Amino acid sequence: MKINGVAHRTIWPNPDKPTEICIIDQRVLPHRISIEKLITKEQATRAIKEMYVRGAGLIGATAGFGMYLATLNAPEDAADFSQYMATYAATLNNSRPTARNLKWAIDRLLTAIDTVHTTQEKQKIAFATACEIADEDADYCRRIGEHGLQLIKEISKRKQGEPVNILTHCNAGWLAFVDYGSATAPIYAARDAGIPIHVWVDETRPWNQGARLTAWELQQENIANTLICDNTGGHLMQHGMVDMVIVGSDRTTHTGDVANKIGTYLKAVAAKDNNIPFYVALPSSTIDWELDKGHDIPIEQRDEKEITSVMGLDDKGNITTVRLSAPGTKAANYGFDVTPARLVTALITERGVVAANKEEIHRLFPEGKTLT
Amino acid sequence: MKINGVAHRTIWPNPDKPTEICIIDQRVLPHRISIEKLITKEQATRAIKEMYVRGAGLIGATAGFGMYLATLNAPEDAADFSQYMATYAATLNNSRPTARNLKWAIDRLLTAIDTVHTTQEKQKIAFATACEIADEDADYCRRIGEHGLQLIKEISKRKQGEPVNILTHCNAGWLAFVDYGSATAPIYAARDAGIPIHVWVDETRPWNQGARLTAWELQQENIANTLICDNTGGHLMQHGMVDMVIVGSDRTTHTGDVANKIGTYLKAVAAKDNNIPFYVALPSSTIDWELDKGHDIPIEQRDEKEITSVMGLDDKGNITTVRLSAPGTKAANYGFDVTPARLVTALITERGVVAANKEEIHRLFPEGKTLT
Repeated sequence: MKINGVAHRTIWPNPDKPTEICIIDQRVLPHRISIEKLITKEQATRAIKEMYVRGAGLIGATAGFGMYLATLNAPEDAADFSQYMATYAATLNNSRPTARNLKWAIDRLLTAIDTVHTTQEKQKIAFATACEIADEDADYCRRIGEHGLQLIKEISKRKQGEPVNILTHCNAGWLAFVDYGSATAPIYAARDAGIPIHVWVDETRPWNQGARLTAWELQQENIANTLICDNTGGHLMQHGMVDMVIVGSDRTTHTGDVANKIGTYLKAVAAKDNNIPFYVALPSSTIDWELDKGHDIPIEQRDEKEITSVMGLDDKGNITTVRLSAPGTKAANYGFDVTPARLVTALITERGVVAANKEEIHRLFPEGKTLT
Repeated sequence: MKINGVAHRTIWPNPDKPTEICIIDQRVLPHRISIEKLITKEQATRAIKEMYVRGAGLIGATAGFGMYLATLNAPEDAADFSQYMATYAATLNNSRPTARNLKWAIDRLLTAIDTVHTTQEKQKIAFATACEIADEDADYCRRIGEHGLQLIKEISKRKQGEPVNILTHCNAGWLAFVDYGSATAPIYAARDAGIPIHVWVDETRPWNQGARLTAWELQQENIANTLICDNTGGHLMQHGMVDMVIVGSDRTTHTGDVANKIGTYLKAVAAKDNNIPFYVALPSSTIDWELDKGHDIPIEQRDEKEITSVMGLDDKGNITTVRLSAPGTKAANYGFDVTPARLVTALITERGVVAANKEEIHRLFPEGKTLT
C-alpha cells in the first residue's frame, strides 16, 4: 500500500543486493520513515524481538528471511549446517512467544532446506521460500479483502449511503503483513468498490499501534478514520456508532479461539452485548493446529516501561520518551489476550468466511488435520 | 490522606485568609505537587473546567467554594445579587456536563444563600455551606469505606491469606473527593483492618488518572498496586486474577445506571462475562433523581488533543507533551460512558450497600423521591 503516494511492501530484498533485506522501522512511525537493512540473522531476530517489525504476517515473513540470512553463514558440513539452523530456529522462535506465524515460517524454511543437499542449494531454496512466504502473505491478505468485502456490502445495503462504521483494534493493516493487511484488506476492497467507510481506530496502548500505525496507514490511503482511546469502543457500540468490528489475530486455535493484541477481548464482549458482528481476519498461517484451547496460548509479557512511559514527538520535532507515572510505579504488560470462539461472529480467511468452530475450520482447511 | 507522610485534603480554605481556597493542581501530579489558590469565581470555574481539580466529590466541593467566592464580589442589591449568582451558577454548571455533583452543590449553595438577607449573611452562609459540603463529602466517603469493607472481608475469607485483588478504573480515590475517595475508601478500610489487598490500576487514557493519580495515591498510602493499560483488565479477569471491581461514579440515575469515566462499561461487561462482582462506590450526591435512563446522561466531549498527545516527564525532569499520532489525525474524545444497572452487582453508598435498582435506591434514600 501507499506511503506518500508510493506503493510499498513492509519487507523486501534489496533489488541491487538480495542478501540485504529491507524493512521499515515501525518503532518510529509515523514520525520518521526509516528503512533499515537486515544483513545478519541476529539483526532479523532483533527486528522481531524489539518490534522494528510486528504483526502476524510480517513476523512470519521476517522469520523466513531471517532463516535465509542464517544459511549465508552456516557451516558447510551438512550435520553442522543442520545443527546451526536448528539452534537459530529455536532462538528465533522464542523472540515473540504468542505469534503463531513465527513457528509456521521457521518450520516451512527448515522443511524446504531439507529437500536439497548443497549449501548453495540450501541458500537458494531458503531465499525462494522466504520470498514465497512474503508473496503468499500479500496474496492471502488480498483474498481476505475479497471475502470480507461481501460482509461489508451486506451491512452497507441498510446504511442508505451512510458510511459503514468499522471498529478495529491494534494494527492488522498492511504494516502488520507484507501488503493489504488482514483486518484492513476488506476496508481497502470496500473503498475500491465505492462503499463509503469510516474506521474507528483504537489507539492500542501501550505500544500505540493504532495511533501510530493504523490511523496513519488509513490516512495515507485516504480512508476516513477517527482515533479513539481504547476505552471508547463500548460507548460507541452502545450508541449505534459501530456497524461491525474487524480485528486480526496473532494465533488462532483450530477450534476458533483468537489470541490478538491485549484489549481485543474487551471489544468482543462489548460487541456481543450490543449485537454487533465481531469478525477476525486472518491468513491460515496464524492457525495453530495443535492447540485445542485458547487458554493454552502462551501470552507474551513485555517490559513494564512500555506502560509507565510513552514515546512521541515533542514540539521541537524530537522523538522523546516521557514518563507517565511516579517513580517506582510497578506495572504489568501482557501483550495479548484470548477472545473465545463464542464471541467471534466469523473468521475471514483467504479461502472464505468461516464460523469459528473446529468443524467448520477443518472443513475449509482439510489439510489442517494432518498438522494436528 | 497522605502525601509524603503528611495528611492532606484536596481542597481547603487558607487558614490564614479564608477568602483564599487552596487546591492541589492535579494536572501536574505526580510530577509536581503544586498548591494553587482560588481567589475569584472565574478561577474556580477554570479549575473545574481545565481539570486542576476533577472527580465527583471534588468537583462538587470546588463548586461550593466557587459559589462562595462569587458572593464576595456580588452586588449589594438583593435582586442584583440573585441575578449575579444565577448567572454564575449557570456558567459553573456548564463547566463539566456529566458531573452530577456540580448541580447538586450549586443548588445547595443557592438554597442556603436564599435563607438569609444581607450580603454579609449570604457570604457567611455560603462559606459555611461550602465547608459543610467538603466535610460531608469526606465523612460520606469514610462511611462508604466502612460498608465496602464488609464486601472485601467476605471475599478475603476464601482467599486463605492471599491478597484480595481489586481492579479499579480512573481515580475515584481521595484525590477525586475531599478525602478517602469512594472506590478507594473500602481499600483503605481493608488495609486498616489488616486484610491483604492488591489493586490493579487502569491507567485510564486519555488523561491517565490511573497512571498519574491512583497509582501514586496508593503508593503514598503503601497499598500494593500494579499499573496496567486499560486493555488488560479483561485478560486478568479471564485468568482469575481479579476478585472484584470497584469504580466510582460521576452521575448515577435513581434507577441504578452509572456514568463513570470512559471505559468503565468495558470492565463491567467483562466482569459479568467472568462472574466477577462489579461494585460502584458513590456518595448520594452523585445520584440524579430526575433521570430514569442512563442513556439520557449528557456525555462530555473534550479536546481531541488529549487523544493525539500525552503529557509526561522527560529525562531532564521537564513536564513535556508529546504527539502520538501523525499530523492531521482526527480523534474523538468522549469523557464518560454509561454502565447499565444490569451489570452492576451493587452500589456502595454512605448509607450502605444497595442493589442498583429504583426500588432499593429509593428505599435507602426515601427523601430522594422529593427531588424527582
